[in-house]
Amino acid sequence: MLRIGLIGTGTVGGGVIQILEQKIAEYKEKLGVELELSCICAKSEEEVAPYKAKGYKVSTNADEMIAGDDIDVLVELAGGYNMPRKWILAALESGKHVVTANKALLAKYGHEIFPLAAKKGLHVLFEAAVGGGIPIIRSVQEGFVGSTVESLSCIINGTCNYILSRMAEEGLDFDVVLKDAQKLGFAEADPTFDIEGIDSAHKTALLASLCSGKRVDFEKIHVTGISKITAQDIAFAKELGCCVKLLGIYHRDGDRVDARVHPCFVPNTNLLSNVNGVINAVYLKCDNLGETVQTGAGAGRLPTASAVVADLVSLARSTDQGSRKALPMGWFNVENSATLVPISETSARYYLRFTSRDACGVLAKITKILADNNISIETIIQKNVNDPGKVSIVVITEKTLDSKLSKAVDAVNSLSEIVEKSQVIRFLA
Amino acid sequence: MLRIGLIGTGTVGGGVIQILEQKIAEYKEKLGVELELSCICAKSEEEVAPYKAKGYKVSTNADEMIAGDDIDVLVELAGGYNMPRKWILAALESGKHVVTANKALLAKYGHEIFPLAAKKGLHVLFEAAVGGGIPIIRSVQEGFVGSTVESLSCIINGTCNYILSRMAEEGLDFDVVLKDAQKLGFAEADPTFDIEGIDSAHKTALLASLCSGKRVDFEKIHVTGISKITAQDIAFAKELGCCVKLLGIYHRDGDRVDARVHPCFVPNTNLLSNVNGVINAVYLKCDNLGETVQTGAGAGRLPTASAVVADLVSLARSTDQGSRKALPMGWFNVENSATLVPISETSARYYLRFTSRDACGVLAKITKILADNNISIETIIQKNVNDPGKVSIVVITEKTLDSKLSKAVDAVNSLSEIVEKSQVIRFLA
Repeated sequence: MLRIGLIGTGTVGGGVIQILEQKIAEYKEKLGVELELSCICAKSEEEVAPYKAKGYKVSTNADEMIAGDDIDVLVELAGGYNMPRKWILAALESGKHVVTANKALLAKYGHEIFPLAAKKGLHVLFEAAVGGGIPIIRSVQEGFVGSTVESLSCIINGTCNYILSRMAEEGLDFDVVLKDAQKLGFAEADPTFDIEGIDSAHKTALLASLCSGKRVDFEKIHVTGISKITAQDIAFAKELGCCVKLLGIYHRDGDRVDARVHPCFVPNTNLLSNVNGVINAVYLKCDNLGETVQTGAGAGRLPTASAVVADLVSLARSTDQGSRKALPMGWFNVENSATLVPISETSARYYLRFTSRDACGVLAKITKILADNNISIETIIQKNVNDPGKVSIVVITEKTLDSKLSKAVDAVNSLSEIVEKSQVIRFLA
Repeated sequence: MLRIGLIGTGTVGGGVIQILEQKIAEYKEKLGVELELSCICAKSEEEVAPYKAKGYKVSTNADEMIAGDDIDVLVELAGGYNMPRKWILAALESGKHVVTANKALLAKYGHEIFPLAAKKGLHVLFEAAVGGGIPIIRSVQEGFVGSTVESLSCIINGTCNYILSRMAEEGLDFDVVLKDAQKLGFAEADPTFDIEGIDSAHKTALLASLCSGKRVDFEKIHVTGISKITAQDIAFAKELGCCVKLLGIYHRDGDRVDARVHPCFVPNTNLLSNVNGVINAVYLKCDNLGETVQTGAGAGRLPTASAVVADLVSLARSTDQGSRKALPMGWFNVENSATLVPISETSARYYLRFTSRDACGVLAKITKILADNNISIETIIQKNVNDPGKVSIVVITEKTLDSKLSKAVDAVNSLSEIVEKSQVIRFLA
């Protein structure tokens, strides 16, 4: 019997209660696994009232629930940093396992949480924290344990993927689609966290930690969001047989970790290019296993709740009879901080879009700057844009070191003919 | 400490030894999980000699190894039916866990193996049996346990997918590509098992059992292979915005199970359409989780071996400290046989290709037969084929019951103008 104490009755918390009500009998009958929702906790009496009416034990005092003897596992679905951090540490101190979907918390305070769990021999499970319905944590920690992950690219923010997909389908500008996405509930009122790539960076930090076995500090990850992507960039991408995706990226680079989040030109032949709307996807390349892609709902009430419940069943199977060994510190060593590859040392093919006055000789100046910086050009496209008197010059470079490229782009930006900050987007490969 | 007894030093067995040598120290250091390759067993002294030379304990007597006290888990990678069945049952009888990649054996004798394991409280793990590098067994059994699988479509035979992909890319006929695939090692000398869909049926039976929680007998599954697919069918598929894939299919149909294997027209917008070559993919639709797709290497030495090793690590984590509860009968109840939906009761949109003498009035006769059987036509394409005097008539039907369609096609086949057996391929959706 695994006795569950749940904090949070919002979207995901409500979904967990719904699924447990649906499935608890089935788990007992088919898996011999007994779950019990022992206490439901939320901030206010109003929030817990409907569950109290149904006969559940409820509480508005999380500390008390955690300190008590009535639960074996704390399910933290409140969100935020401070209180959840306190609750989770207290739960572990008092011998309770933890299940959470809080990627922001784990990315920020994992170095406190995982070592304490390891010391106490307790499980901290977080399948729902990354990729909602995609069992990617379980896959990396268990399914792919016979291989070393060499690299990973993932679409792990549904809001960004929704916006980029609609921009591509309808030729619309970023701001227009964002507003509509907010209206439809696919983007928050304050969308910064999503569109500037911070949410993706939290998740990428967790995945990079799992893949590398080292602690990857999400604050050290290079992040570029999608708010500067224009309809024009997406039209050029199409012309080049690509689409634009916000990707979380991890590469093993000797002893260092290359982890970053930025928009990418993804060729239409790549399996990630077909992943549209709020769908998430994770591409992995492993030494023994080769390449795999997992695709699924990235967020949403029931997909996320379903991942939480899967963790609970896993935990119950592990603790019902004897104790399955917990993965030490979530399989990565938080003492062992990863050295990240600075973005300046990474290389890629680049899409550069320069906007200049329609003046004679600009192209010559740009190509000279690129040549002076030893940057080889693969393709050049020059087009008039809608603004009269303005010209877009798109350059696709061969594989170039980021530091070299940045220097050249800075030089181009300082040309008097250049009227907008130049756009720089990496190709996935 | 989990002591491993391995039977089979062939492709996959050799790969398992290779990965264990690579990773055993890492598992101990990072996961605190100790694996030991305690005995390597093969048919002949020649096969085990290289491992004996390396210092491993070896054996040519599997029965003795299984009966002894030196191993905790039997890893069966010999293949075939009779001996592996005997070994696995003996291992379970004497208290050893089992890891195997033998889908044929599990599809045929799972009803003996799983109940015995359940009775003894032992694990039978078989991640490597389906989809090689895709952790699909783990996903269905654990990651998706918070949902009910409503339907599943999968590309799970690399040989067939390789042949169909090359037919599509190069416009070649089946026989030509098959010969080349045999030369390149992508098809066996006797390819029947693969190209006639039997291997896919084994795997589909296992997946359908896991999804339905019932025993799905692979002999009851409707199977059509790919040997009758022509270059012309694939060209028509392209024209219709589709590709042809051999799919394993599962649908929950009330209390019954709809499980089958046959070629399908897959629209190019579907994620499965992009899965080419020897790659495998599994699409799942779940009630709570929504849709997911997992793609990866379907076979091959290291991908398959990597899945076996993942099972061993899982087992070691479960048995090192206390005992993680084994999933009863691999999560499905072999006592509870599934009632399968007869293929005649299934419905689909159909691609029909009729080959007739270039005679007046054939089209009228065909359309009359279809109309008499209440089959609605969505599209008709008529083309001259290379053979002079022959005409191909392609009909795409609206959604039609199989029994109705079969009756109509039989009637068309008996027309004197029809010179070849008519082709019938279902659309995925």
